[in-house]
Amino acid sequence: MMDSQATNIHWHIGSVARADRERLCGHRGVTIWFTGLSASGKSTLAAATEKALHLRGLHTYILDGDNIRHGLNSNLGFSPADRAENIRRIGEVAKLFRDCGVINLTAFISPYRADRRCARGLADGDTFIEVFVDCPLSICEQRDPKGAYAKARAGIIKEFTGISAPYEPPENQEIRLHTDSISLEEGVEVILAYLETHQLIPKQKMETRHRHPGIFSDCEER
Amino acid sequence: MMDSQATNIHWHIGSVARADRERLCGHRGVTIWFTGLSASGKSTLAAATEKALHLRGLHTYILDGDNIRHGLNSNLGFSPADRAENIRRIGEVAKLFRDCGVINLTAFISPYRADRRCARGLADGDTFIEVFVDCPLSICEQRDPKGAYAKARAGIIKEFTGISAPYEPPENQEIRLHTDSISLEEGVEVILAYLETHQLIPKQKMETRHRHPGIFSDCEER
Repeated sequence: MMDSQATNIHWHIGSVARADRERLCGHRGVTIWFTGLSASGKSTLAAATEKALHLRGLHTYILDGDNIRHGLNSNLGFSPADRAENIRRIGEVAKLFRDCGVINLTAFISPYRADRRCARGLADGDTFIEVFVDCPLSICEQRDPKGAYAKARAGIIKEFTGISAPYEPPENQEIRLHTDSISLEEGVEVILAYLETHQLIPKQKMETRHRHPGIFSDCEER
Repeated sequence: MMDSQATNIHWHIGSVARADRERLCGHRGVTIWFTGLSASGKSTLAAATEKALHLRGLHTYILDGDNIRHGLNSNLGFSPADRAENIRRIGEVAKLFRDCGVINLTAFISPYRADRRCARGLADGDTFIEVFVDCPLSICEQRDPKGAYAKARAGIIKEFTGISAPYEPPENQEIRLHTDSISLEEGVEVILAYLETHQLIPKQKMETRHRHPGIFSDCEER
């Protein structure tokens, strides 16, 4: 019964391909890979970019410490090998979300060039966008929202990126945002413009571009 | 600049929640977890179910050996510990896809009750649907599409589920399909009816239910 049918039907039903899922979503499956120091603004940018994309009716998902470090990667520590495996798994999951047709945004320090190159290597074509969230260490350290830099300086936290562990800045990132001198809205606009220009998301008509007051009300008041 | 804005804006932009993503998708984020012996029909059912859901305009993704064993779990073998870690990671990724609002279908033997219970334990509410793809070992062995059962009998493949490694059938599965006696179309219909009844996907109007000739053309010819 099912056995022979399965064999016959396989040809008929085909399978749902990435292009089918992208067509349904109305945009490409894309990874926006934010990299930068702790407190440089990666998570804030990812959240604001996701919100802006979502309000345009696009399908999004953020991979960050909250949902990865406590879940998939809960059995990894901070040794060099574990850091590499951490980024490897995130790269693989990002690839699955791209294949699903979803715009996924990853917000991890991801300090090593080799690891980021590995994640990029999993991408097909132009759908891996590395965003260098570039903010001077001194500014990040002033912000220090969780007091982590202070603890790192005091030697309480070991191997802290920027203090006692290296950060290797990107050399060929798609987007570089100096988050000490631009606004959050400006950062998001740069990313959306990149996605539009590269035909990864549909262009938004001018008259609807600012149809969502509230999302950036702070910015608009400037 | 961005620092202070980020703090202020955080409250304004909020974040995109699972419910927002589900609203955009038009359905709940759901995991359909197929479990059963090798050659029982898991992948065929998952592919046909995905196709049927996709043709209804719903957002789907399959996690299976092809995209998991060669990617995320490429550093795992078949020892008991690695098998458990294999299913743990799949359960975590399935949770991410649910959170994204996507109907994800997993097609793995997943022979151990404890591992499946672990994957289910990650689910919120009623969005984890275990489908027992129940087919007698003798039938699976007759089908043996890749000759794996023959190799297992000959001792060439060690620890093969059903032959030299245990399969623990589900005790409280949501759906049980006897794939030796029902058609593929019938199996898919049972799953779709379950999703509709539990309000996980929108009900399809009767007149459009069979608007996609071709997908099950073999079945309809019976």
